[in-house]
Amino acid sequence: MKPSIPKGTRDFLPAQVAKRNYIFSVIKKAFQTYGYLPIETPVMEKLSTLTGKYGEEGDKLLFKILNNGDYLKKADQSALSAGDSSKLVASIADRGLRYDLTVPFARFVTMHQNDITFPFKRYQIQQVWRADRPQKGRYREFYQCDADVVGSGSLMYEAELMQLFDTVYDELGMEVTIKINNRKVLYGLAESQGIADKFMEMTISLDKLDKIGAEKVVEEMVKRGIAEPKAKKILELMEVKGLSELEGYFQNSETGMKGIEELRTFHSYIDKAPTQNKLEFDISLARGLHYYTGCIFEVVTDEVQIGSIGGGGRYDDLTGVFGLKGVSGVGISFGFARIYDVMEELKLFPDAVTQTLDVLILAMDAEVHESAFEILSSLRSKGIKADLYPNAAKFKKQMKYANDLGVPRVLIIGSEEQVSGLYSLKDMNSGEQQKLTLDNLIEQLATDQQANKLT
Amino acid sequence: MKPSIPKGTRDFLPAQVAKRNYIFSVIKKAFQTYGYLPIETPVMEKLSTLTGKYGEEGDKLLFKILNNGDYLKKADQSALSAGDSSKLVASIADRGLRYDLTVPFARFVTMHQNDITFPFKRYQIQQVWRADRPQKGRYREFYQCDADVVGSGSLMYEAELMQLFDTVYDELGMEVTIKINNRKVLYGLAESQGIADKFMEMTISLDKLDKIGAEKVVEEMVKRGIAEPKAKKILELMEVKGLSELEGYFQNSETGMKGIEELRTFHSYIDKAPTQNKLEFDISLARGLHYYTGCIFEVVTDEVQIGSIGGGGRYDDLTGVFGLKGVSGVGISFGFARIYDVMEELKLFPDAVTQTLDVLILAMDAEVHESAFEILSSLRSKGIKADLYPNAAKFKKQMKYANDLGVPRVLIIGSEEQVSGLYSLKDMNSGEQQKLTLDNLIEQLATDQQANKLT
Repeated sequence: MKPSIPKGTRDFLPAQVAKRNYIFSVIKKAFQTYGYLPIETPVMEKLSTLTGKYGEEGDKLLFKILNNGDYLKKADQSALSAGDSSKLVASIADRGLRYDLTVPFARFVTMHQNDITFPFKRYQIQQVWRADRPQKGRYREFYQCDADVVGSGSLMYEAELMQLFDTVYDELGMEVTIKINNRKVLYGLAESQGIADKFMEMTISLDKLDKIGAEKVVEEMVKRGIAEPKAKKILELMEVKGLSELEGYFQNSETGMKGIEELRTFHSYIDKAPTQNKLEFDISLARGLHYYTGCIFEVVTDEVQIGSIGGGGRYDDLTGVFGLKGVSGVGISFGFARIYDVMEELKLFPDAVTQTLDVLILAMDAEVHESAFEILSSLRSKGIKADLYPNAAKFKKQMKYANDLGVPRVLIIGSEEQVSGLYSLKDMNSGEQQKLTLDNLIEQLATDQQANKLT
Repeated sequence: MKPSIPKGTRDFLPAQVAKRNYIFSVIKKAFQTYGYLPIETPVMEKLSTLTGKYGEEGDKLLFKILNNGDYLKKADQSALSAGDSSKLVASIADRGLRYDLTVPFARFVTMHQNDITFPFKRYQIQQVWRADRPQKGRYREFYQCDADVVGSGSLMYEAELMQLFDTVYDELGMEVTIKINNRKVLYGLAESQGIADKFMEMTISLDKLDKIGAEKVVEEMVKRGIAEPKAKKILELMEVKGLSELEGYFQNSETGMKGIEELRTFHSYIDKAPTQNKLEFDISLARGLHYYTGCIFEVVTDEVQIGSIGGGGRYDDLTGVFGLKGVSGVGISFGFARIYDVMEELKLFPDAVTQTLDVLILAMDAEVHESAFEILSSLRSKGIKADLYPNAAKFKKQMKYANDLGVPRVLIIGSEEQVSGLYSLKDMNSGEQQKLTLDNLIEQLATDQQANKLT
């Protein structure tokens, strides 16, 4: 039997895990510095929690877990005899795998509303599963990294979240542009042209502006039932640069004016502590189908052709569907997989990330192997990442192991070294060799290790 | 709709996540110091990988994932019409959730044998799922923390793994006893009494000695087909204290003698670098149904009544079932959930673990709120975990938030402070208040934070 893994899933080898963990640790550290608290929710949720939250298409992409035991006993007999797979599901599967982190978070806030302090700032870095057709860069199992604040409408949080983006991408060594808009401003645009009833159609089309260009967006709007002159006017308005200019068009749109006011309040905060990376108002930013109602954000990088690497926004009613009304939320999400790809392409991972050992000990003959084990223990007890080849194999074989592991130095111990108490430390890159006492050795390795330390 | 989560699963609130992460970080750091490398495998495995590896009982406890799309199309019609749930599974579910980390690891080693360097030392900290009946302390979703070495028979690794146990429990502040035995010694016992054909029955019974006592173990052995005098003799041999005494009984058992030799080689290593915690030879240690073939280990604590909190052993043929022959492995596993419970009961978590913020800023009036945001950004840019109440609410309300979050200090900013450039830092425990410039403030908070730093 030749083993394999399910389509769209992946194994991760040590170097990949190390790089992934590096990104997670940078994001986590920033989340914590900004006062976000970690929560964790189960991988399995009840299907009653998940179903209907991601549209009809989303429901199809949920992974469903077969009920345990004699699941056919309670199966819907009419669905069974009709051979209706979709209809049968409800009676043989009560649980499914998490599809995103937002719905479980809304469920969590509702269930634990008495155990948490509002405004509640949470972060969550966990996997999600979608039965999408796998393709390059799209998997069925992947991580999401979300930070959200619920229970406050303060625009300070919008500003803070942009700084959080800024801090993380900066720390990772990426140059990005953070785009910001407001769904109320988009609604104002629709109202200004008398097409408020076509707001969704307008935003879905606008969302493609970057990809397909103005002409095709107009075509799509027309196809979606927006009169051509109005569609063209909307596209003209995409050229508007500032909020003041925009105000002129919003005389009949209270919502549009509210959107401008929100963006101004946002700016009154962010101007006090500007981001290092470019932050720009982009009136064409729409964030597609997401249920945002206020400010919206998206992060792109010019260095690599890859689409957005982060995004988010404010939603007025996160938990309403679970019965907790009037809780406003705002949050962002880091596009982990794309960040990884960008960092690989631009070679942004520090070398220390994949360095596994500080030193590997090679024992030259069987008699010294146990003493070498004693030295190994001393090194480890000082926090030095050390290992010992498991027996006194030929030097060449041990050196091959050291090379294959990519260790920066080897410590060579033979009977001579054991007698003299002076050990040979060989730098694997330069080939240089030093003779050191055990104390000097520990001191030097501890110093080198400190210098290589990551966040 | 009142939301809930599936039976046997849990949500984790921030303080719980922080404590859990503390344990993980201690374990991870030790794994890395000892040269173990992280891997990750998918949550979903093919059922062909999982089925048959955990006994008949285990197969029943696997969570199975319903195939996507029109799964009834390929359903086994005879199983369907017979209403045979177990038989139907194979035709409607190709995947299941990971049941442990060992089988996925064996699959991983087989699939990636050309990408890894042997001896391969890997650690893996991931969740597993079992459809067990939930009860106190037993969940359907839980973490396993495993370290294994594959591709070497060196007994040095047995010694190293005992040190790894020692390092982790010591760092966590727990006092433990590490018990060690060897399955070959147990086999020797069986051979010495001429009941080698009843080896499994003997070990399964012996495994219960701690719980049910010698008399009941003899009863159970008899019930499992071992003659009473032989069962009694086995129990007598449980009193044997040292390896030399044991040798006398093993004159006819090559395997038994090999077991003694392995334990002696193990000791030649561990004696060079003894553990801080008690390490004892326990001839009654059996490790039940596990497929170990060499040394076996178990960790218990005397401080809390809770059973074993760690265990492991050597298995001769980890990957054979997937087609890769002759790969010996040895590994240990930390009983994460029980470690958590012990640490809670003995109050071993450092206070700093659950401290979320270094400081919370309170703005006394709306005019200074934006300036307070500027100060907030300065603090965060220095890595200080800081936050700002989102508006200039009443002092009492802001202080309540500070108390609910358990922040150690608040920084109070009003118009007076803004003019003078001297800010009031209040210690929430002592009530003491200091007036500081922004530079002094940053310096002091950074120093305090450094002092509180965890591993």
